[in-house]
Amino acid sequence: MNTKIKWLRDKINLLNMQGIIISNPVNIRYLTNIEAEGVLLITRKENIYITDGRYIEDVNHTLTIDDEISVYNVKDVSSYDYENFFSFCENVGFEENYITYAKYKQYMQQYKVNNFEETDFIIEKQRVFKDEEELQKIEKACEITDQCFSHLCKFIQIGMTEKQVADEIGKFYQENGAEGNSFDPIVASGKNSSKPHAIPTEKKIELGDPIVIDMGCKYQGYCSDMTRTVFAGTIPNEVRPIYDLVLKNQKQVQNDLVEGASLKMISKMVENDFRLNGYNLIHALGHGVGLEIHELPYFSLKNDVFVKEKMVLTNEPGIYLPNQFGVRIEDTVKVTKSGSINLTKSDKNYIIVGK
Amino acid sequence: MNTKIKWLRDKINLLNMQGIIISNPVNIRYLTNIEAEGVLLITRKENIYITDGRYIEDVNHTLTIDDEISVYNVKDVSSYDYENFFSFCENVGFEENYITYAKYKQYMQQYKVNNFEETDFIIEKQRVFKDEEELQKIEKACEITDQCFSHLCKFIQIGMTEKQVADEIGKFYQENGAEGNSFDPIVASGKNSSKPHAIPTEKKIELGDPIVIDMGCKYQGYCSDMTRTVFAGTIPNEVRPIYDLVLKNQKQVQNDLVEGASLKMISKMVENDFRLNGYNLIHALGHGVGLEIHELPYFSLKNDVFVKEKMVLTNEPGIYLPNQFGVRIEDTVKVTKSGSINLTKSDKNYIIVGK
Repeated sequence: MNTKIKWLRDKINLLNMQGIIISNPVNIRYLTNIEAEGVLLITRKENIYITDGRYIEDVNHTLTIDDEISVYNVKDVSSYDYENFFSFCENVGFEENYITYAKYKQYMQQYKVNNFEETDFIIEKQRVFKDEEELQKIEKACEITDQCFSHLCKFIQIGMTEKQVADEIGKFYQENGAEGNSFDPIVASGKNSSKPHAIPTEKKIELGDPIVIDMGCKYQGYCSDMTRTVFAGTIPNEVRPIYDLVLKNQKQVQNDLVEGASLKMISKMVENDFRLNGYNLIHALGHGVGLEIHELPYFSLKNDVFVKEKMVLTNEPGIYLPNQFGVRIEDTVKVTKSGSINLTKSDKNYIIVGK
Repeated sequence: MNTKIKWLRDKINLLNMQGIIISNPVNIRYLTNIEAEGVLLITRKENIYITDGRYIEDVNHTLTIDDEISVYNVKDVSSYDYENFFSFCENVGFEENYITYAKYKQYMQQYKVNNFEETDFIIEKQRVFKDEEELQKIEKACEITDQCFSHLCKFIQIGMTEKQVADEIGKFYQENGAEGNSFDPIVASGKNSSKPHAIPTEKKIELGDPIVIDMGCKYQGYCSDMTRTVFAGTIPNEVRPIYDLVLKNQKQVQNDLVEGASLKMISKMVENDFRLNGYNLIHALGHGVGLEIHELPYFSLKNDVFVKEKMVLTNEPGIYLPNQFGVRIEDTVKVTKSGSINLTKSDKNYIIVGK
C-alpha cells in the first residue's frame, strides 16, 4: 500500500474510526495521484475508488499495484454494495468541510453507517508536511518561476500594459515545462501596486512606476509562489525607505522560520516593526504552498501555528499605501531541521526594468 | 423591493418559511446583482447582505434604493445580531445543495433558528425562466459568439494548432465587448473531434480534418453556447452522412422545442433516429444557459422536464466515433409562446475553412 494511504489508515485507527470517505479531489490527488471526479473509500478491508466511465481508463493508468486501490464504475455499484462497504464499521469519517449538507444526507442513506464522524481537515493537516517527492516538485516549480522572472526583467518595457506582462508570465510557464500559472498573476504598476490583490489592467507602465509582480506556476500538480517589486526606469526616492523596510523584515522572517517558532509571534514582530516606522501590516505574512496555492498553515495575528520541518510556506511582507504605491517581496520557503531555505532565489535588491 | 426578491418572499411564504439564508453566489447575483463574498438573509422584516471590508464599497455601488437591502460588514455583526435576525421565524430555509455540512452546523449555532428547512434548488428552479433583461444579455452574448465564429472562419488556417484557435476565441471575446469565455472553448480536429469534451492540444489542423468548435462568451454575467463542426480544406466523404444526420436531428429538435414538449421524449426521438442509422446518443442533448453555462433544466433520457416559454436551452446533438471523428452542432435557443428561436444564428451548412 502506498505510504500516504498507510499513514491515513494508522491515523484513523488512532481516532477510533474503522473507515473514511474522502471526497475532496485535492486530498484524493494527494493520496493516490488520481485526477478525476469520484470518491475514495478506505474501508476495513479495502481501498476503493468510485468514479464514472469518463475516467476509468485514466484512473487505471495512474494507479500502480503498490497503491492497492480497487476501481469501481459508479454505474456498477449497487445499493447492496454501498451498504456493505462499511459493514462492521462503528465510526466512519467524512469531510464535513468539503461535502454539502445534501451530500451528507445522501451518504447517510447510501452507506447505512452507524456513526459518521467529522474529521476536521485530517488530510489537509498532514499535507502541511512535504515528503521528498513533493519537495522536488515544488523546487522545480520555484526554479521555473525564477527563470520566468529573469525573462521578465528583460521583457518588460515602459509603455507595455500590465495585462501584456501578465500574459507573458502564463505563456512562459507553458513553454518552459510548467503546467501553467498556479494562480492568476498580479502585475500592478504605479498606484495599482497599493492593492494587495490587484488584477492586471490595460494601464501602461510608466517611468518611475514600482511594479509588484506576484507569480507562480504548477509543476506536476505542485505550486510555487513569488513576488518581486521592480522599478520602471528609475527608483522614486519616496519608495526606497519602504522597499528597504519590507526587505529587512522579509529577511528577518526567513531567519525566524526555524523549527518551533510561532507564526503568530513572527507576524507580531513584523507588525511591530512596521508600526514603529509608521505603517500597518494589512495583509497576512504568508501561507502554506503545495497542491494548492493557499493551504495550511496560515500566518495569523490571532491563531497560532508552530513551525516544523518539511513545511513549505510563503514569506511575503508588504506595505500598501492607498492611492500612492505598494511594495511586497515574497519567497516560497522550505523549513528544514537546520533552518529555512528559500526555494525561489531571484534577486531581491533594487531591480530596474525597461531601461 | 426588486421583483426577484419580491418573488422569493412570496415563494417562501407559500412554503411556510419566514426567512431564508442564501449562500450560493450565483443565486445572490441573480437576486441582487451583487458579485462579492457574502450571505443574503431574507428575514421577516428586512433583506440583509453580510460581506466584509473588501467588498462593502463595491456592493453599495451595485445596489439601488429599489433593492431595499441593508449591507452589513461582518465584523460589525455581533452574536446577538445573528440570534435576532430570524426572531419569531419558525422555519428558515437554507441551501442544502450549496453549503457544507460544517457550515450548516455553524449556521445552526449562530442563528439559533428553530427549524432549518431544505429548499431543494428553489432559486435555481426559478432561474430557468428568463425575464426581458436577462434575455437581452443572453442575446448579446450569442451575437458576439456569432461574430467570433465569422472571424474564425477566416482566421483558421491549415497548420495552425488547436490551441492557437482556442486562444483566438478568448481574445476575440475580450476585444469585442464580452467579459471573456463562458467556458474553456473546445477546438478538436481530426481524431480529437471524437471526444465530446476534448481539450485543445498542440495538434496542427490538417487537410480534411473535421474541426469541432464549441465556444461561448459572457455578457454582463450571462452566457452563450454554440458549436459548429467545420472542415479544413475539404470534406471527407465518410463524414458527410453523419454531418447530415446530426444536422437533421438538430433542426428537428428545434422544431420540437415548444411549450409543453418533454425533454425526455425529444431525447428519445433523437436517440432512436441515431440508432436506426447505426449510431448511439452518448451525450445529453442539451442544458439550460443563463448566469451559469450549465444550469437547469437538463435534457435527459431518464428524468423528465416539460418545456415552457422563457426557458433558454442548448440544442446540441452529436455523434462521436472513437478514433475516427465526431460531429456536433449546437445552438442556444429561447422558447417562446409560439415556438423556439435560435439565438445563435451562424450558418449550419457545410463550412470549409483554411482554403
